Amino acid sequence: MTPSHRATGFPAGDSSPPPAARRRPGGRTSRIRAQVLDAVRAELVEAGYDALTVDAVAARAGVHRTTVYRRWRDVGGLLADVLDAASDDDWQPEDTGSLPGDLAVLNHQIHTALTAQPPITAALIAASFRSDEAARALQRFWEDRYARCEIVVTRAARRGEIPARTDARQLLIAATAPLYHQLVLLRTPPDPRLPDHAARGAALAASAGAFTESPPDDTP
Amino acid sequence: MTPSHRATGFPAGDSSPPPAARRRPGGRTSRIRAQVLDAVRAELVEAGYDALTVDAVAARAGVHRTTVYRRWRDVGGLLADVLDAASDDDWQPEDTGSLPGDLAVLNHQIHTALTAQPPITAALIAASFRSDEAARALQRFWEDRYARCEIVVTRAARRGEIPARTDARQLLIAATAPLYHQLVLLRTPPDPRLPDHAARGAALAASAGAFTESPPDDTP
Repeated sequence: MTPSHRATGFPAGDSSPPPAARRRPGGRTSRIRAQVLDAVRAELVEAGYDALTVDAVAARAGVHRTTVYRRWRDVGGLLADVLDAASDDDWQPEDTGSLPGDLAVLNHQIHTALTAQPPITAALIAASFRSDEAARALQRFWEDRYARCEIVVTRAARRGEIPARTDARQLLIAATAPLYHQLVLLRTPPDPRLPDHAARGAALAASAGAFTESPPDDTP
Repeated sequence: MTPSHRATGFPAGDSSPPPAARRRPGGRTSRIRAQVLDAVRAELVEAGYDALTVDAVAARAGVHRTTVYRRWRDVGGLLADVLDAASDDDWQPEDTGSLPGDLAVLNHQIHTALTAQPPITAALIAASFRSDEAARALQRFWEDRYARCEIVVTRAARRGEIPARTDARQLLIAATAPLYHQLVLLRTPPDPRLPDHAARGAALAASAGAFTESPPDDTP
């Protein structure tokens, strides 16, 4: 994944502000969008959801407030666009040649995003509990990311590492869920071994047929 | 787990209000605590965190507001006590005789809690993103629940289902995390097969040695 000013959350989520000189593709409209979304991210991590207002975003972005109201309507619209913009990239999961390897790289990217400073990913997840619009945008974002990751499972099946009828989504959720659970909900201190452990566990389970439609061992 | 007026979140989380006639153990102090915590849960699911105030809780509980301020101080204190109270039970994981069976029962309890109506568990998790005190209480609650679940792993190791050196916490997180991730963060529609699938995946991974200190397959 290319380092990006976009605050993705999954998997990488480089939240650093863009270098001032970075070229903004497109014309004035996309330049304004980039300025506004940068301002949303900065306000969110600095002041939090409660202080996030259209006016503060407009002022920080140096854009007239009526422009922001007209295009984004409210804070929910701004947050949703930050998340939608995060999918506008060419990120693809790495091909390391093995399923545990691919999942480990993915998990390290998620771990980096979830523990990044400033914590833009964590702030966007928290905001999803405040704004239904942000929650739906976060769903879209993750849906897109998990869909892109399905190639990891396809490749593993092609290499014979896992059964051909493995459910890609189930496997990807199993691999990544422990990171989100521990870092976002359980709020345990970051454990550098966690990405590899979760990747290995899911890969072993997949190899054992845990995520096939009709599992070999249909225990309750 | 006995049905309880306590809103636990993990694993069962029966959030129904207590029958009026239910005996409150202890004296006036614990009676007041029960009334106040019931009122917090009811206010939280009906009106949400933003409308949750000490005064509204006191009025609903029929308790003088100075009593509530003195004992709980603020909304954070009230939420933390709801979560701390949820650990005051004798819940233990079921012993079904097999690791996949034990984990499946546990996951069904979590699934029930996370999809319950009224959604008290979901509301408490959402509140943990608003109040540091609630977040710390939620950590304590989960820590207690996961500690109680370690017996599931001990029994499985004793039966020879998994290696003796299996890390109980890693296994339990792997089994339960997909439910939290899908239902709380990804907000996918409840899937009745999810509890069993996640349980089976974690059990298979554990049997394959995924959660031992020195894994047989030390892939990156």
